[in-house]
Order: sequence, then structure tokens, then C-alpha cells
Amino acid sequence: MATLKDVAKEAGLTTSTVSRILNNRGYISDNARQKVDVAMKKLNYQPNEVARSLHRKSTNTIGLIVPHIRHPYFSEMISNLEDQAYDKGYRILLCNSQSIQEKETEYINICTGNQVAGIILCSGTVSMELFEGIGIPVITMERFLGNGTASVECDNKQGGALAAQKLISCGCKNLLHVGNIGTITMPADQRTEGFREACEKNNIPFVELLTEEGQYNSMAYGELIAEALRKYPETDGLFANSDVIAAQTLQVCRKMGIVVPEHMKIIGFDDVNIASLTTPQLTTIHQPVKEMAEIAVNLLHDSIAGKMVARRTVLPVRLVERETTGFSAGF
Amino acid sequence: MATLKDVAKEAGLTTSTVSRILNNRGYISDNARQKVDVAMKKLNYQPNEVARSLHRKSTNTIGLIVPHIRHPYFSEMISNLEDQAYDKGYRILLCNSQSIQEKETEYINICTGNQVAGIILCSGTVSMELFEGIGIPVITMERFLGNGTASVECDNKQGGALAAQKLISCGCKNLLHVGNIGTITMPADQRTEGFREACEKNNIPFVELLTEEGQYNSMAYGELIAEALRKYPETDGLFANSDVIAAQTLQVCRKMGIVVPEHMKIIGFDDVNIASLTTPQLTTIHQPVKEMAEIAVNLLHDSIAGKMVARRTVLPVRLVERETTGFSAGF
Repeated sequence: MATLKDVAKEAGLTTSTVSRILNNRGYISDNARQKVDVAMKKLNYQPNEVARSLHRKSTNTIGLIVPHIRHPYFSEMISNLEDQAYDKGYRILLCNSQSIQEKETEYINICTGNQVAGIILCSGTVSMELFEGIGIPVITMERFLGNGTASVECDNKQGGALAAQKLISCGCKNLLHVGNIGTITMPADQRTEGFREACEKNNIPFVELLTEEGQYNSMAYGELIAEALRKYPETDGLFANSDVIAAQTLQVCRKMGIVVPEHMKIIGFDDVNIASLTTPQLTTIHQPVKEMAEIAVNLLHDSIAGKMVARRTVLPVRLVERETTGFSAGF
Repeated sequence: MATLKDVAKEAGLTTSTVSRILNNRGYISDNARQKVDVAMKKLNYQPNEVARSLHRKSTNTIGLIVPHIRHPYFSEMISNLEDQAYDKGYRILLCNSQSIQEKETEYINICTGNQVAGIILCSGTVSMELFEGIGIPVITMERFLGNGTASVECDNKQGGALAAQKLISCGCKNLLHVGNIGTITMPADQRTEGFREACEKNNIPFVELLTEEGQYNSMAYGELIAEALRKYPETDGLFANSDVIAAQTLQVCRKMGIVVPEHMKIIGFDDVNIASLTTPQLTTIHQPVKEMAEIAVNLLHDSIAGKMVARRTVLPVRLVERETTGFSAGF
């Protein structure tokens, strides 16, 4: 592999000049810059990023800590973050904490030991103390961390309200809401708030079902939903806190002979690939994942550059009508 | 942050002794090792991984190049690879090539510039020349690269045969197979081979449908399938090359009034989350993704250590019977 010295020799310049050009330091003539460019291309020179990072005391790497990869919400989020990071010249170090505290701690150590430029955190169980004094910007997604640099969320409360309003306007009289994990507090809890307020305003009764961490990790909600529908057979409208839960509600309904959307309307949350892969397709609340990812990377980029950034950014959501509330689309 | 010098001072040893301990070089007494351990914990010392990497001329990072993240097969594969890498002390640099040649080239340069220990490649459009002389082990997954170090595949041909046999044993007489991308050659093409041989042996006619790269990227197969079912209305059994395609076949059948599994049996491939989230649930060919990921990381680990590794590893697949071929399971 070609070295900096080879490039300097080929360009007819000193190594210190070439180094200054690569690091954009001091005055450099266009002529010298062009010579180096030609030499680098000719020799297929790749700067040693590791050496450069040691010198800069930072890398172009973002540590991305997620609790899940195969969950469609996170694979969608990871895909968008990777895309945005690439466009801005960052690389993604992928860390799946699986909501395991020790793994989270170790991954934070790995991130700091590898001098990442910043961390994007989508994991809810991380304890705040871990981020004390690490001296690296931390952007949280759909999470809130008192000592984080900035958080990006969707308007969860609006989403809950939109779901309730839609079910009510479809004529549903007895609603069921499959909510978040009871033992963890997160912004998504606001979906329940928005749903509750809209139901109360319209005098529509609803039952709230909490979920468990184990169900979240395994993505297995079938039993929980079946039990609830047996207990509340009058249910004619269901709002689930994720499309994964809504998809499993469809399965339960089929097994129990409940026809969707005729006897039961269903609304999910997220609008990830699964929402349009079920039969019938899911009506859902669209999270602007692409825009959230773009803003998160921008916030991190600005923080790294030492700029002041918004502490909290909340993006709007919207209802996407598909077949589980009676809307019919061709292909 | 504590430095190596601080640790040495705290432990009452010289910095060179501490350095030898951290790098596992030469004779070190248990007593000294323990002292350093205690000092590191007390000072919360994190070794500077960047400096260590520069010294070793390699990192503990694996470059993972995939063509897709949100596709459920790849999110499942990424999740398993991350898990296995973590267990072996490697980190994952996530690179989504989106099947774009320039992006693949740039990501390979990023990987080499960052001195990754090895590359795991799940991308099919990469050209072999890019890997000439990079001096880094390259493990391919479900791809084959003449100059790659080793490949890990599932027995695609067996999978195609199992699907055909199952549809035939269900009494299907007119089969449709939704195959791979016509313009790209990959191991998954063998699914069609296995399917064809089994059909021919049983004298069962079948129509083969090729797909396009655009459909693969957007995961939108509805139009293609609808058109085929209109053209071949006698079809009573369909084998799709992925669960994503099979899920969309379910949607098309519903729109066209074709009842599954009564009038049409469907078998997918992969057995990723979507297979058990559809209604009815998909019968499919299970790829041992977890085992494939484990073997890939082991092969890479051994290659990095200079050991000889198998050039090609092929793992068996199995049929998982669910509702789209008439099997009924409770929850």
C-alpha cells in the first residue's frame, strides 16, 4: 500500500506539505493541492484513518446503540441513520444492547475507547449515570436522557389522539389499547395519554393493556391479545402501540373468527414495512423515521462542531389509512 | 480521563510493565497483573483503542457490507452477526451499499482505511476486482466471490426441492415460482434449480417468474404477482424466493378473491419475522441464519489468526409448516 511519503515523492513535494494538504492546515496553493490529488489517485493512496484519528483524538465514527435490530422499527431507523451518516462522512459502529444493562455499559466503554465522535442512543434502559462526563455528544431517539445532548422524538401524544379519533369516527364503541412496557418510562407512553384524552372527550370507554419487556424482545404478543379479546368480547376497535402488535392482533382475530375490518377496526403505530405486508394492510400512525434520522445526524454533527443545538425536537406524525379501518386501495 | 501513566503510578509499577500486561507480552507475575487490574478499576481506565490499533496495525472491527438493512432477511442476519461478533470481542462497522457500485467501492476503501480486521460481505453486486490485494480476509454470505476467503451459504437447492415436494404432496397441480433477480447470478438461483428438478421428477408443470432489482430494493412485488395470477388462473401452488414476496402474494390473493390455503398454497423462503406475522402465517423454508452468522464470524476469526479455513460451507435448510399450506397451529 502507498504511504504519505510515496505520495510526496510522486507529487514532488515534502511530506509535511502533503500532510498539511490532507489535514487542511495553513495556506496551500491550488497547484500543490492538484499535484497531490493526481499523485494520490495514481498511487491509489488511502490515508490511514487510524493514524489520523489518533492525531485528531477523535474519529468519524458514530456509535449507534439500539435495543433491537430485527424489530422492523429499529431496522428502519438503523437503515435511515446509516444513510444520513454516510452522506455526512460518518461511519456507524453498530451496538445492539438487547436491553441488557451490562452490554450497554460495555458498549459505551467500547464507544469511548474507540473515540467515537458521538453516540446516537435508541435504547431505553440505559442509566443516565453512564453518560456522566464522557465528553461526547449523545443524541437520543424516542428516549429521554436528562444529561443527553439532544433528543429527537415524534409527537406520540398526537399519534394516540389521531388513532382514537379515527376509531371513533368509524363508529367503534368499545376500544382496547395495547400500550407500552409497564415497567419502563419512555416518550411512547404519551401515545396512551393522547388516546385517553380523545376517548374521554368523546365519552368512549376503553381498556388499556400494558405489555412486558419479554414480549418486546421476543415480539410475541399473541397470547396477551387473545386473552384480552376473550375478556372484553365487546371490543370493536383496537389501537396498538406498534405495527408488530397490530399484525399479531390480525392473526388472533382470524383464529377467533373476528372479521377485520367489518367487526373490528385496528390501528398500529410506526408505519414500517410490516404495516403494508399484512393481509389486510394496517392502518397506522406514520412516524417520520427518515426525517428523525436526518435531524439526529445533523444535531450530532453540529454538537461535534461545538454549535448550540435544540435540546428537544418533536416531529409531527400522521394517520395512514389502509384496510384495517375499511379503506380499500388497489395495487 | 486516566492515562496509562496514572495506572502505573497507582499500581506502583513502571509504564512499560503496565503496557506489557495490557498487551500480554513477556513474563508477568500474577501479583503485578492483579495490581494493574485493581488500579485500572479504581481509576476507571479505558485503554485508548485507537492508539492500540495503530500499534497493532489492525483493529477489532469487522466491516459488514450489506445491500439492504430494512429487508427482514438482512435485519435478521445483521442482528445475528452483531451478536456473534460481540461474543468474540469484535465490533461491527455497518455499511449499507444499497447495491450501488460506487457506494460499495467507497465502503471497501473506508474499511481498509480504518484497518478493519476483516470484512463480511452480503452484497451481491460487488465486483471481484475490488478485493484484489486488499490483504484482509473476506467472508461472503449467500454470495460467491472467486477471490473471497470463504463463503457461507444455506443449501438453496435443497430448499427449492423441499418446497416443490410439499406443494405436490398437498395436491397442487399447477405451480408458480417467483424467483430471483434475472440479471444477477447468486447462490439463491439454486432454489429454482431444486424446485425445477423436483417438479420434473413428478411431472408437475410450473411457471417461473423472474424479478427485478428495483422490486428487490423497494420490496414491491404486488403488481408482478397479480399479473402472473391473471395470466395463469389455474395456479394452485406458489413458491416464492422470499417471505417478503410470499406475504405480498397473500395480499394479492385476498384482493383477487383467491382463498389461502383452500384454493392456493403458498411457501416462502427465509423464515424471518414476517413469516409468522402474516395472516395466515407462512409456510416457509427456514434458513439457519443464526448458525450461518456464527460460522461466518468463526471463519473470519480463524482467518485473521492465520489458520486455514473451509472455502465453502453449506448448511442445511428445513421446511417449516404453517397455515399457508393448511397446517393449523394454536398459540
